[in-house]
Amino acid sequence: MPLKQKDLRIDQDELQELLFGPWADDRRQMRKMMAEPVFHHQFNLTKEDHRELTLNQLKELAARKIIGKAYPKEFGGQENPGGNVAGFAEMFHAHPSMQIKAGVQWGLFGSAILALGNAEQHKKWLPGVLSLELPGVYAMTEIGHGSDVGNIDTTATYIPEDDAFEIHTPFKAAWKEFLGNAALHGKAAVVFAQLITKNVNYGVHAFFVPLRDDDGNFLPGVGGEDDGYKGGLNGIDNGRLHFTHVKIPRTNLLNKLGNVNENGEYTTSIPSSGRRFFTMLGALVQGRVSLATTSANASALALTGAITYGNQRRQFNAASDIEEQVLLDYGLHQRRLIDRLARTYADIFTTNELLVKFHEVFSGDDDTDENRQELETLAAGIKAITTWNALDVYQEAREATGGAGYIASKNRFNALRDDLDIYTTFEGDNNVLLQLVGRRLLGDYSKEFSTPSFKVLTKYVAERAESSLYERSGLRRVVQQVSDVGSERRSAAWLKDTEVQRSLFTDRVRTQIAEVAEVLRPVAKAPQAEQARVFNENQYDLIKAAKSYAQLLQWEAFTTALETIEDRETKKVMTWMRDLFALSTIEQDLGWFIEYGQISQQRAKTLRQYTNRLAARLRPHAQDLVDSFGYNQHHLRMDITSGSEQERQEEAAEYYRRLRASGEAPIPEKVHRARQG
Amino acid sequence: MPLKQKDLRIDQDELQELLFGPWADDRRQMRKMMAEPVFHHQFNLTKEDHRELTLNQLKELAARKIIGKAYPKEFGGQENPGGNVAGFAEMFHAHPSMQIKAGVQWGLFGSAILALGNAEQHKKWLPGVLSLELPGVYAMTEIGHGSDVGNIDTTATYIPEDDAFEIHTPFKAAWKEFLGNAALHGKAAVVFAQLITKNVNYGVHAFFVPLRDDDGNFLPGVGGEDDGYKGGLNGIDNGRLHFTHVKIPRTNLLNKLGNVNENGEYTTSIPSSGRRFFTMLGALVQGRVSLATTSANASALALTGAITYGNQRRQFNAASDIEEQVLLDYGLHQRRLIDRLARTYADIFTTNELLVKFHEVFSGDDDTDENRQELETLAAGIKAITTWNALDVYQEAREATGGAGYIASKNRFNALRDDLDIYTTFEGDNNVLLQLVGRRLLGDYSKEFSTPSFKVLTKYVAERAESSLYERSGLRRVVQQVSDVGSERRSAAWLKDTEVQRSLFTDRVRTQIAEVAEVLRPVAKAPQAEQARVFNENQYDLIKAAKSYAQLLQWEAFTTALETIEDRETKKVMTWMRDLFALSTIEQDLGWFIEYGQISQQRAKTLRQYTNRLAARLRPHAQDLVDSFGYNQHHLRMDITSGSEQERQEEAAEYYRRLRASGEAPIPEKVHRARQG
Repeated sequence: MPLKQKDLRIDQDELQELLFGPWADDRRQMRKMMAEPVFHHQFNLTKEDHRELTLNQLKELAARKIIGKAYPKEFGGQENPGGNVAGFAEMFHAHPSMQIKAGVQWGLFGSAILALGNAEQHKKWLPGVLSLELPGVYAMTEIGHGSDVGNIDTTATYIPEDDAFEIHTPFKAAWKEFLGNAALHGKAAVVFAQLITKNVNYGVHAFFVPLRDDDGNFLPGVGGEDDGYKGGLNGIDNGRLHFTHVKIPRTNLLNKLGNVNENGEYTTSIPSSGRRFFTMLGALVQGRVSLATTSANASALALTGAITYGNQRRQFNAASDIEEQVLLDYGLHQRRLIDRLARTYADIFTTNELLVKFHEVFSGDDDTDENRQELETLAAGIKAITTWNALDVYQEAREATGGAGYIASKNRFNALRDDLDIYTTFEGDNNVLLQLVGRRLLGDYSKEFSTPSFKVLTKYVAERAESSLYERSGLRRVVQQVSDVGSERRSAAWLKDTEVQRSLFTDRVRTQIAEVAEVLRPVAKAPQAEQARVFNENQYDLIKAAKSYAQLLQWEAFTTALETIEDRETKKVMTWMRDLFALSTIEQDLGWFIEYGQISQQRAKTLRQYTNRLAARLRPHAQDLVDSFGYNQHHLRMDITSGSEQERQEEAAEYYRRLRASGEAPIPEKVHRARQG
Repeated sequence: MPLKQKDLRIDQDELQELLFGPWADDRRQMRKMMAEPVFHHQFNLTKEDHRELTLNQLKELAARKIIGKAYPKEFGGQENPGGNVAGFAEMFHAHPSMQIKAGVQWGLFGSAILALGNAEQHKKWLPGVLSLELPGVYAMTEIGHGSDVGNIDTTATYIPEDDAFEIHTPFKAAWKEFLGNAALHGKAAVVFAQLITKNVNYGVHAFFVPLRDDDGNFLPGVGGEDDGYKGGLNGIDNGRLHFTHVKIPRTNLLNKLGNVNENGEYTTSIPSSGRRFFTMLGALVQGRVSLATTSANASALALTGAITYGNQRRQFNAASDIEEQVLLDYGLHQRRLIDRLARTYADIFTTNELLVKFHEVFSGDDDTDENRQELETLAAGIKAITTWNALDVYQEAREATGGAGYIASKNRFNALRDDLDIYTTFEGDNNVLLQLVGRRLLGDYSKEFSTPSFKVLTKYVAERAESSLYERSGLRRVVQQVSDVGSERRSAAWLKDTEVQRSLFTDRVRTQIAEVAEVLRPVAKAPQAEQARVFNENQYDLIKAAKSYAQLLQWEAFTTALETIEDRETKKVMTWMRDLFALSTIEQDLGWFIEYGQISQQRAKTLRQYTNRLAARLRPHAQDLVDSFGYNQHHLRMDITSGSEQERQEEAAEYYRRLRASGEAPIPEKVHRARQG
């Protein structure tokens, strides 16, 4: 049986197709280009030099006409938002600062003009955006408002006598903050501000505001500060901007969603200010999808490095005859890296599905309100979990490769990690996003969960009070426990059953949401302060429920992907991977599953042991599984994947072989003493 | 009752004394000096400029004669190893590269000469070490050997005709690697090499080897490479060194433990090569103690920043009348930061106890083999857990302060985190160290656990088979469960009982070790390969047991500290802190506790809820608890602790007050539409 398992072979081609997803060609095209040194990051630069390098790389990207895929054909685009993000995510391994600066220019600044501007505005500005003649800023966030965009304090007041809007940041908390391109390169900005006309505030709208003249000097009334040296992404010139009664023509309002005529009268095709606002934030949703997809790639890259090294590195005792194991032969090393490899596969399958949903909405193929809202929920949850996963992978990869992993100029882990770090809080703080997910789930709770695309949460939640009583009585657990005694094999079979896994993941979300809902119900009609207090007390639990939901999405995406695999041996190995993802994820929250009677004590024990066994069983396939990601040395650019470790081992072994053959090898002290008697 | 809890007041002075521990004066002296700008780190430097800055700071440190406290009085020292490390740990908040470069010079290079050299060698080299006229390298690690020092491949062969040792790195894997001071500044090195004389290998010994001439050029036969740009600590010039038949005088052998006479005869006062080796590594133990102590400080610094900001920052809706909560009022934020604050207190108390043990051994007050071995075990476990904790704290602090937290030049989190990153694998990879702890625990298992200093593990492990049967039958759980139904208060009382907590932490270690021991026992006499296989299969579980042990040490240290607090209100608050540490730690491994029948399902539920409540109860004390660490703005140097956030809020609030008073505030769209009706 073990031999048979070892002999299994993965069909790397089929697996790679699956991993590359629906926009495989766009990925390949970008990945190939990103292998060119002109796009690569460099180390040990001051931020000034790093910014210069990055700007030049953006110019090169623009010249190659690779970045406009999401734009209309009349501007040289392909109207292919899915392919655009798939390609964008490939830029990470070349140079994250370049990627994110490109995201600022073409994903945020340009997308906002495209989504919120009219045809005339498109013609006027988009060519410059795409050619980089018009580098721009997406000026939404303010110092005083991180994730609360609806309450920004910058105003855009219509002045009829000038037929102009006056952009104004009335105090420092209203300054725009953390804006890429703001400190140095931005010539204009899309500024989000409260639109005020005839003394009525119509809420947040977007305005095209020129920032700098051709010499790079701020225009009158505009000012700013450099954010300085950051924790990462120092190729991007982030900064603050402030506006003191800056006048812009009325026609600089990006007026697709709402317009002001020369008499100062406001009109809109969307009467609900909430819905206008939601549409206004479209670029952020695209940003979240992009970060999630990038994070999945980033994890794949790091694990390719760490696992390749783990397959070569020995604490080599060249002087002895016994060849020591490579690192990946150790049980702990397997759990550290192969667990995370399984989770990275889940991340990739999940973001591939997210990308499909994103494309449906943003291409207009299925741009219903419902689908858009579902996209927003999915993007929020998946962005949160994949960005955290990536950071965790980078830390583990770094530690698993020891001191070598710490040399950023050779193996890149720390540098890439630092660039990824901000992902957890930008385009929405992960915890705020999860809270958004949690609120949606609470909302859905009353009308049964339904998220058609991911085929989950379809059955109705068992009446909470009843099941709770059932648990408290201890009856359910005892029944499972008694029937489990001495049947480890039955426990293992149960754990790897797809329907069992599905119900474990599903029931956890249901129960956790139901529990919060139950606590909130009695105060549903209480005063707001009381409601807020109770909500606050349960915030931690709600966030946990949202995380459980995101993990359910991952499990579903993995399982869906599994169903499409044709090669039998590949399917077998990938089923173990799915099981390892499922069981190691459950293991991390095992307390909950036992506490709620979902898993008996006996089965929990089996789960621990079986998870170790799964990792060991997958160990012989680990290299194939990372090779299937398809990165070559031009993408990896890591000394630890270059084969240098193997070479050194061979050199050392050869030295000792010759020394022994020469008969001149020194005698160990112990042997010497023994001989002396 | 809640009012009374809120009214409690912490005696910050008493608490600070406790936190500062036995070497409070040494800490204060160094902390005060470290507030001076000359010692501070700077950002956005190339590694070349960063190295220059750091070297100059070391010169300043040497000039201030602050760094020799562990050295003998004849060299200007105080023979105070405990106070030396306590002071060393304070250097972190000034500039981590300076701290670690100082550690290389005076903690590793100098300490090795002191510990392993003879009086003549001391006189010859120590003055230069202390004055920094002789910057040096501690050349132990090799490319091919990370944590396996016993098997290094560099040789030191005695050549009688020259009365010299020949230092030689026979192949690239034997090159010395990751050495501070090696790339640029080191004039000499303590090189660890296999001592060979008369064709017998006497194992690893230390040799004083000159590296560079006065112009900084390598001496004949010596060569090296710069390690390049690292993930952090770029003020230190790490590099590789290789030696090609480099001859040094016989008297350059640091010969306290073993000597070679001019006839090439080896003599030693310590016949056991194992024990010689153990003594040889003394500097590493000091390194581990230093890293643990520094990590505890580092966590305290980060949490002071994040909690201070959490007490000021609002997602401020200045335009409305309702003043929003500050971040720390949110339930999730409390769990994110106050849990970690409690754990940081535990880290501090634990490292304070470790420092006492270290001082006992290194001052010679109690330098028995047993005590030394115990120190080694404690240092290994505590270094592993505190360094990981610090990284976790920095990540959470960064995320909890959002984009502001990412600006390294203003708030330092990322910069400090990057410098801490390597702590997890240097002076011993954390997992390797935990495995060492696990092996010791396995060894102790047969002769009952006994670690007198931390007063733990004193009761004998219940017979494993029996208790296992007990569990499997489900009887124990059911009994606890039935008696628990409906008695949440009784459950909470149980959870906060000191003896209950002690037995939970203790039993977990015992059971986990016993379980691994049981699996290993049947193969105790099996062939080595079979033993290794079974050990490997259980490596993951053994490491978990070692982590449990480290957490037990933390709990014991916290509880011991608690007992000494005199102020009643402070003691009350600190008891909650201890409870929060205990329960949030247990919560993370709740699955294990339920699975093994230690905590019933009902009590698990109470634990979750009660832990939330504890964090909320501690929330009003959070600022006092971080202020007790005693850092001022010169130590913190963070924009988020400067009060700028508060100022901006007041400015914004004032603006809106005036706007409302003027009667010219714009009307919200909703109100406007309603009026139009």
